[in-house]
Amino acid sequence: MLKIRQSGFTGPVWAVNPRAEEVAGEPAYPSVTALPQTPDLAVLAVPPEAVPGVAEDCGRAGVRALVVLASGLDATQARRLLHSCRRHSMRLVGPNSLGIAQTDPAVRLDAEFGGAFPVPGSAGVAAQSGGVGIALLERLAWLGIGVSSFVSLGDKYDVSGNDLLQWWEDDQRTDLALLHLESFGNPRAFARTARRVTRTIPVLTVDAGRSAAGRRGAASHTAAAATPTVTREALFRQAGVTATRGISELVDTAALLHSQPLPGPRGAVAVVSNAGGIGILAADACVEAGLSVPPLPDDVTAELAALLPPAAGTANPVDTTAAIGPAELLACVELLTRSQAVDALLVCLVPTALTPGADQDLLRTLLDGPARRRVPVTAVMLSQEIPTRCRPCADGGQLPSYADPTAAARALAHALDRARWLAEPPGVEARAADCDPDAARQLVADFLAAEPDGGWLDPARTARLLSCYRLPLTPSVLASDEAGTMAAARSLRGAGHEGKVVLKAHVPGLVHKSVSGAVRTGLADESEVRTAYREFAERFGDRLAGVLVQPMAAPGLELLAGVVQDRVFGPLVVLGLGGTATEVLDDRVARLAPLTEADLTTMVTELRSAPLLLGRPGFPGVDLTAVGRTLAGLSRMATDLPEVAEADLNPLIASPDGLACVDARVRLRPAAGFDPYLRQLRRPPATPTEEER
Amino acid sequence: MLKIRQSGFTGPVWAVNPRAEEVAGEPAYPSVTALPQTPDLAVLAVPPEAVPGVAEDCGRAGVRALVVLASGLDATQARRLLHSCRRHSMRLVGPNSLGIAQTDPAVRLDAEFGGAFPVPGSAGVAAQSGGVGIALLERLAWLGIGVSSFVSLGDKYDVSGNDLLQWWEDDQRTDLALLHLESFGNPRAFARTARRVTRTIPVLTVDAGRSAAGRRGAASHTAAAATPTVTREALFRQAGVTATRGISELVDTAALLHSQPLPGPRGAVAVVSNAGGIGILAADACVEAGLSVPPLPDDVTAELAALLPPAAGTANPVDTTAAIGPAELLACVELLTRSQAVDALLVCLVPTALTPGADQDLLRTLLDGPARRRVPVTAVMLSQEIPTRCRPCADGGQLPSYADPTAAARALAHALDRARWLAEPPGVEARAADCDPDAARQLVADFLAAEPDGGWLDPARTARLLSCYRLPLTPSVLASDEAGTMAAARSLRGAGHEGKVVLKAHVPGLVHKSVSGAVRTGLADESEVRTAYREFAERFGDRLAGVLVQPMAAPGLELLAGVVQDRVFGPLVVLGLGGTATEVLDDRVARLAPLTEADLTTMVTELRSAPLLLGRPGFPGVDLTAVGRTLAGLSRMATDLPEVAEADLNPLIASPDGLACVDARVRLRPAAGFDPYLRQLRRPPATPTEEER
Repeated sequence: MLKIRQSGFTGPVWAVNPRAEEVAGEPAYPSVTALPQTPDLAVLAVPPEAVPGVAEDCGRAGVRALVVLASGLDATQARRLLHSCRRHSMRLVGPNSLGIAQTDPAVRLDAEFGGAFPVPGSAGVAAQSGGVGIALLERLAWLGIGVSSFVSLGDKYDVSGNDLLQWWEDDQRTDLALLHLESFGNPRAFARTARRVTRTIPVLTVDAGRSAAGRRGAASHTAAAATPTVTREALFRQAGVTATRGISELVDTAALLHSQPLPGPRGAVAVVSNAGGIGILAADACVEAGLSVPPLPDDVTAELAALLPPAAGTANPVDTTAAIGPAELLACVELLTRSQAVDALLVCLVPTALTPGADQDLLRTLLDGPARRRVPVTAVMLSQEIPTRCRPCADGGQLPSYADPTAAARALAHALDRARWLAEPPGVEARAADCDPDAARQLVADFLAAEPDGGWLDPARTARLLSCYRLPLTPSVLASDEAGTMAAARSLRGAGHEGKVVLKAHVPGLVHKSVSGAVRTGLADESEVRTAYREFAERFGDRLAGVLVQPMAAPGLELLAGVVQDRVFGPLVVLGLGGTATEVLDDRVARLAPLTEADLTTMVTELRSAPLLLGRPGFPGVDLTAVGRTLAGLSRMATDLPEVAEADLNPLIASPDGLACVDARVRLRPAAGFDPYLRQLRRPPATPTEEER
Repeated sequence: MLKIRQSGFTGPVWAVNPRAEEVAGEPAYPSVTALPQTPDLAVLAVPPEAVPGVAEDCGRAGVRALVVLASGLDATQARRLLHSCRRHSMRLVGPNSLGIAQTDPAVRLDAEFGGAFPVPGSAGVAAQSGGVGIALLERLAWLGIGVSSFVSLGDKYDVSGNDLLQWWEDDQRTDLALLHLESFGNPRAFARTARRVTRTIPVLTVDAGRSAAGRRGAASHTAAAATPTVTREALFRQAGVTATRGISELVDTAALLHSQPLPGPRGAVAVVSNAGGIGILAADACVEAGLSVPPLPDDVTAELAALLPPAAGTANPVDTTAAIGPAELLACVELLTRSQAVDALLVCLVPTALTPGADQDLLRTLLDGPARRRVPVTAVMLSQEIPTRCRPCADGGQLPSYADPTAAARALAHALDRARWLAEPPGVEARAADCDPDAARQLVADFLAAEPDGGWLDPARTARLLSCYRLPLTPSVLASDEAGTMAAARSLRGAGHEGKVVLKAHVPGLVHKSVSGAVRTGLADESEVRTAYREFAERFGDRLAGVLVQPMAAPGLELLAGVVQDRVFGPLVVLGLGGTATEVLDDRVARLAPLTEADLTTMVTELRSAPLLLGRPGFPGVDLTAVGRTLAGLSRMATDLPEVAEADLNPLIASPDGLACVDARVRLRPAAGFDPYLRQLRRPPATPTEEER
């Protein structure tokens, strides 16, 4: 109340309290209905048990929005609160919110109890955690970026990050959106909105709960299911959201995106320093952040050599030596920012032995110039105590300066990711030709009719389902005895690599087939096939439910591809390296379905092992068209059939001539909507219970 | 001069200048010999061309040490300077040094021109780059750690990081050594010294030149060969040196090591925060830094629950909620630091909505307690503008506090590495039994007699050399024609997996054997062998110099092991994943030879793919004794035979039953000492040239 007054709110404010005459020096009204006018917004600073009653009063009085500060509402209180909001079409921030703030001079509302009045500026901030929200406000104020509007989302029964994104998209005062989200109520809606908004303004988030320990904390903290890292990463990547690993990284990146243009999508950084040792550390930091620090072209090094002292280093990093003056530094910056070989510039300055304050003089020269040049420029000031600053330039713009080259490099790397994302063609859904979704749906329906709880498909049904999406499953025959095995081997040999076949024991419950001696490869003739069959029969006895016979695949790179259904996020398509060794190395990329055409390429290039797929001197790579076709088919299948709980094509043996899927597993379960707990919170029952009326 | 006086130097100071009566208000003497006493130290602030003459004057006058500030000495000037130092037994700092400082109250010497007088304290600092040195002094002053002694090493013609380590080891005022090194003159001496000194005090370094771009900068900056990352990492790892990736990380880590005990070697961190959202981010940062944040034992969570508000989270991270007061926080800290389940404690505090300055009050409670507890305690203060501080405690100790949980986590992770290193048994050289070094030396001598420039050994000599060190090379026969191939296959079949053999075309100059169709595996009978031979003959024609026949190895995990000679560092032993896919994934560990017994284990456990070697449920792992034997043999070979320029055992096929080395290459070259350029700088010719006399 006091804070709303002190912030200079331009509209009327009333205090309501049934048991006091006065609140913070203002007269108090006994109830909302007793107010002289109907307020637009009510801030409920009452204990949890009073929330439902007050909310209903507000709704009846015609209030249009609530901010609920209380935390720890029980399920009944939550339901009643939501019911009132829905019945009276009130929007709701919280509960467990610290409040909201709007710094527009026409409004100047500070209805949050976090600390100082947020410094007005251009960043929109929405935080699920109150503590994180306060820290963000404080750091944005230090930076000189400031806040356009702030919402402490709390438990997000109604207003979510998604709503804020839509608001900021049209808000002229906001040029940067900062989100802290620990859980997602409706990730698909979020993805849709974010994908659009990030085309206009940068959307940054702290990716919280990346570790199991962090997710354990998030689960107890937000009472919502924590999301696996790979799923969140896919969401952020596809929506163009800049996902950072902490508050400092978020703010460091905001400083750059707020003040500088984006780098060219090549990401070539020129590093300039007045102390060689610092330039080296900055170059290391850039490369480790995913940028490149390439040697400069000969004409540029020649010009630099003419400009700089004789002892200067003109490779990249450029070492100007401590003897450089402001005019030479400026000429050097002009030269590099004009060069087409340079996509971003990092200028590292240290105090020098020669002239006290020389680094400050050099920085001043930069600040006297234009804030924005052709490429982003960032300063690294080793003598700066505060980690990150936006320094005001003569032309009214800002130049970010960092105390630590690592922070500058990481911010530039995020800017590069954004530049590349913006350069990607907007998403056109990946085409999966010649699919037969009707047959697939029929297969799924038949299976679930027999198995209402779902389960794993047998090999034959697996093959049939996959074939509906043109997914390349190596032909196989399930034989039940020795004679059948021999016949199958005869019929399949011709399709095998070097005329060979593979036998796999079908032993229900067996997990690691290759380790348990249940796979025999490279069987060249009748006698080898017979021997292999008899070995299976002896080893597994009654457990042997059959033998799968396949033509042997040509040797190649083992990949895996598949679909996983996330309870909240929906289906994800995954691509990775397969095989035993690579399971430990965990080289995988995921995307939310449906995939776009661009995803089919970037999923390959984002793998650490991309060079193996793309090929390199002496190694031919694999059939990328076939990989793309597989991913598109999986995406289509996942989108068509929410009943596919998981599908695994593993291994997919990839060669220059194609893909062979040697083994696949598909699990079905009845399709469900959103998580029931979330649904309950977000969609209160249409008919309130007796108690709630 | 002025600075030496102003710093309050306790001894006499004289100025020497042949062309001035006065320097900085002091009378100037025309030469060193004209001084009333012989000084211990001379600081040479003269241009490069005057350095050799003045140095010789100093030497003749009996000066015991020089600091040379000039940079850009040419080769002749450098040689003359070094000759004077050697002849007169003078020690030399620089050239290209910013000077030295000694803050001992009994001395108070500030003979550096970096900026302010270094704040006295307990860190010894030696920096190759002047700019890095200045930045380190400044940041240590901010932290309240301060400096015991400082040396700007410059081009290190004589005094190096190694000398400083030895000095600090015995210096009572120094409890922390900070090094910035861009090149190594004598890494083996450094390793020996550092390995000893790090047992007593922490030795920290900035690992500069990790990227190709950084090394390019280092090469141009220090005129010394840049060292590959893997080699430097091996050196630091084996010597127990804490290698950080930048100045901020160095200082952050110094703050912790300076003020807190080391964590237990398990590395279990308890995270406590008064805002759940921050605790989650801190837990993520800990896990990503390599620490663990395990769930707390039931008795601890029960005690916490009794202590904290009902809404608190008692898992790990512990969320005290914003409602906590100083007494409860202190009780919570006491409880956790006493628990045997906790090896380190991270306390994250944010300003809360409830009480302004609450985070400061909570911190004050911590500072009122003892600075050092059973386990290290660090604070993360989100409202702190300066990234890192050492806060004074009531008992005179210090508590480090960080603005960013990531920085705190990284510092703790370095402390954990140090704790683990100290817990390792001191190095006993790995035993390689039954070696025949005399035969190996004879083979090398014979080869180099015939090939004075060195080269690759042929397959037979490779096998013989490796067998001198009991290195498991699969038997093979080099056949020159079809009949020989058939005979070899017959004799070797029995040793092959499933009685099969492998044929490899010996085609000089062919790089990628497996891609070029020069390898045929799994040949089961005479006709398959013959067909394979004829295919080779047809494909390679005259280029086919022979055919290598081997028994086929049992399937297993492909590893590689080998030796690389570094020009400056000497031999390195390398272990990694082999095979095509893993080359791209680059999972390798290296150690400088000779290896210790402990290295044989840690080289395996430090691989990312360690689980594949160690085994896990369903997968048996590999024969680790055989892996250790191989590494020990390689280490012994590399130590005995400096002529081994490189040796590659690749692939080594590892199974539970042993190792099979299927292919190996060894290159010999005449043994050389240190890099001639470095040798010239460090050891001037005994007889000076005419010009230098």
